[in-house]
Amino acid sequence: MLKSSLHGFFEAKSIAIFGASAATDKPGYVIAENFIKNFEGKTYLINPKGGEILGQPVYKSVLDFDDPVEEAVIIVPAKYVPSSMEDCAKKGIKSVVIITGGFKEISEEGKNLQKRIDEIAKENNIRIIGPNCIGLFYPKRGIDMVFLPESKLTRPKDGGISILTQSGAFGSTFLDIMGTLGNGNYLSKFVSYGNASDINEADILEYFGDDPETKIILAYLEGFNEGKRFIEAARKVSLKKPIIAIKANRNEAGAQAVASHTASLAANDALTDALFREAGIIRVYTWDELFDCMVAFNSSLLPEGNRVLIITDGGGAGVMASDSVGELGLELAKISPAIHNKMKEDLPAFFSVENPIDLTGSATAKEYIYSLEQTKDDPNIDSITYIIIPTPPAINVKDLMEGLKPYAKTINKTITFCALGGAEAVYIREELEQMNFPFYPTPARAIYGIDKLTEYADYLRDHGQKLPIIREIPK
Amino acid sequence: MLKSSLHGFFEAKSIAIFGASAATDKPGYVIAENFIKNFEGKTYLINPKGGEILGQPVYKSVLDFDDPVEEAVIIVPAKYVPSSMEDCAKKGIKSVVIITGGFKEISEEGKNLQKRIDEIAKENNIRIIGPNCIGLFYPKRGIDMVFLPESKLTRPKDGGISILTQSGAFGSTFLDIMGTLGNGNYLSKFVSYGNASDINEADILEYFGDDPETKIILAYLEGFNEGKRFIEAARKVSLKKPIIAIKANRNEAGAQAVASHTASLAANDALTDALFREAGIIRVYTWDELFDCMVAFNSSLLPEGNRVLIITDGGGAGVMASDSVGELGLELAKISPAIHNKMKEDLPAFFSVENPIDLTGSATAKEYIYSLEQTKDDPNIDSITYIIIPTPPAINVKDLMEGLKPYAKTINKTITFCALGGAEAVYIREELEQMNFPFYPTPARAIYGIDKLTEYADYLRDHGQKLPIIREIPK
Repeated sequence: MLKSSLHGFFEAKSIAIFGASAATDKPGYVIAENFIKNFEGKTYLINPKGGEILGQPVYKSVLDFDDPVEEAVIIVPAKYVPSSMEDCAKKGIKSVVIITGGFKEISEEGKNLQKRIDEIAKENNIRIIGPNCIGLFYPKRGIDMVFLPESKLTRPKDGGISILTQSGAFGSTFLDIMGTLGNGNYLSKFVSYGNASDINEADILEYFGDDPETKIILAYLEGFNEGKRFIEAARKVSLKKPIIAIKANRNEAGAQAVASHTASLAANDALTDALFREAGIIRVYTWDELFDCMVAFNSSLLPEGNRVLIITDGGGAGVMASDSVGELGLELAKISPAIHNKMKEDLPAFFSVENPIDLTGSATAKEYIYSLEQTKDDPNIDSITYIIIPTPPAINVKDLMEGLKPYAKTINKTITFCALGGAEAVYIREELEQMNFPFYPTPARAIYGIDKLTEYADYLRDHGQKLPIIREIPK
Repeated sequence: MLKSSLHGFFEAKSIAIFGASAATDKPGYVIAENFIKNFEGKTYLINPKGGEILGQPVYKSVLDFDDPVEEAVIIVPAKYVPSSMEDCAKKGIKSVVIITGGFKEISEEGKNLQKRIDEIAKENNIRIIGPNCIGLFYPKRGIDMVFLPESKLTRPKDGGISILTQSGAFGSTFLDIMGTLGNGNYLSKFVSYGNASDINEADILEYFGDDPETKIILAYLEGFNEGKRFIEAARKVSLKKPIIAIKANRNEAGAQAVASHTASLAANDALTDALFREAGIIRVYTWDELFDCMVAFNSSLLPEGNRVLIITDGGGAGVMASDSVGELGLELAKISPAIHNKMKEDLPAFFSVENPIDLTGSATAKEYIYSLEQTKDDPNIDSITYIIIPTPPAINVKDLMEGLKPYAKTINKTITFCALGGAEAVYIREELEQMNFPFYPTPARAIYGIDKLTEYADYLRDHGQKLPIIREIPK
């Protein structure tokens, strides 16, 4: 039942928008426009004022037409939500997303209002997402309840990552960041569940776990509605796909912030740590870490072990990356003797063919590519981090990027990239992101990405699982 | 004597470039061009081939002309460096920068070669920076020994930050990053000291400490030539200006990388931590942290205490920032009752005027500016972090930036900024950097910046010092 409920939200063939508005600066307009332009099913606009929006009729009530409707989005003011719900019940709508805020998160009166809509839902077997949320975004079918126009928030395109978020602001901002990253092909499904009157974090996690389109799950939580069920679901799901989660509201200061934000309780943070680890959830603490993990899992393979090779042309950057390798409990790989000897012969004598491989300030694009070609199949190496400092005069960064392109399709080893510097580093970033290679702005973060991939691969091996291939191969 | 030695390097009125080259892809050309175009003193080009570069004569020897020369840059191959040094001695040059590599860092033979140049220097009272380094960069006087052309490495312009670095690649890359940041006005003096044959980290730190143009010192170290003297110098200097230092080569993996990079020994890292803390050095571990500290110290005031106010329009971002406040041992400020009550009256009822101040998805630019205006002089608040999520439909980010501009000149409190999202967040970043406000890409990093400012302010107060004003006020 649970699974089929969320299925209804994402697979509905018709939708009614309660609170569709002709005023272009209103959420009710933006959502109407999103669906009219992109939804592959049928869209019905509802507003007691009637009229017309973008050439489509606005019905005064959902009961004013005969076509069946499977799903509803409600954006009307809080006090009108119960009557909209009653109309949904009469129309036989079973999936309702309530964007409207002003319920248990603000007052006793709001709490009662939320109780009333829960009763209507229960009496009529209606499932609710929200209230007080951003709702759903599913680019593949054109389901887009994000009430901010494209000019304010760039949408990511169809991809393999699904997001569940308690905070609407967090979720919508993260969508904006994904939308402007690389080719933008990142998102499968997005659910902002807000007050979780009915559908909560555990329901969504289970659904994403079973969803074949979802390859990676990102979660932003401040508290739990069904913590035990969430952890139990995670234990199963994490054997099939990575779950990367922020559990914010970690200490007294965080809890003070939450009290005025959404209605949830501060949990014991150390306990959260332990439960997450045991259930295979990759816990991250900051925005950077969430982003860095997303990039790693979306764009790299899982490693067979913890032995990392660093290839760079900057001594200092190599040392800092090596420090990170040591600090995170990874190991510096020892290049296989035959490969090592061949490279010593082929490369200039003043290059260092140890680990890091230091191509020095005399590095060229050709030598960078050569070093990857030699080491990419070395069984003594599990992961490679490429730290490019583009400033040396002999490196032609365009040649280097052209040379890397074939590897984007064939690479068979975990790899992360970093480029340091000004304009040329920005160029390298853009090129590598287009190749769906995981790019990081600093050495420490490139190693962090490898560390998290290694941690998850270890978890899967410890639990007798094969390593799934998540990375999408560019065409 | 020490101080006057480095003084000679930065204040020389004439310079000879040994190894000036007419081949435009050679370091000897780039450095010649840098000096011919920018140096406010006299430049003499030296190369046994003679000829002409950019219309200026190339002397076959520094002894072929009568004008006196105060400083030399040597870029000739390693084996010719001793004879160039001998010519410097005959000419009476007392300050020599040896860019050339191939000395003790690569072989026994190189070690002997370095010994030979040390002897010549000692016999003739010549001070050396290098060998195996990038040398000096001092934009104010047009001293620029960076052998990479502007097209490869953007130079920062004159400012208050001075850098000492053991790794040339680290240093030049960091210059490139500073050069592309905001208005680029960041750098006072840069010294890459390489093998530290003579002048080392302790000499440079002392010089920067006494230099009135240097407001902030950044250091990148992998080992120490004179660790004790460095720490003793730091103890004095840190009472006047912040020293932000990376000491890389922190563990066995890091040490393995260093062995093949420069000649230095891995020190005990925990000891380094303790010594740095005790000497008032702000230790950072990663590229991001160094950058984040630089931005904080260069663009914010030091706080009077540890009470932080968060102003945001995104609940989740506020919670994450509050988590960071708690984690770093800072405190969430309590807004003074009178100010709190006024804001409660003036702002919409559903805004949260606690800490974080949550302007919600209904926030406008006006309310953002209003919140800053109300709280900027509150004695109960030591620092403010502004976390802007630009997506809400009613925020006009241009109005917000215009509204903040006057505060860039008048702000009297520690403040850091963050904007999250896609294109509009990038716009906000650029605008705030132009105002010399400290900008961070994530909430955790904006709080980290405040934490480091607070830590240093505490250190100064504990040592009976007044808080210096480092931030440059935009005109």
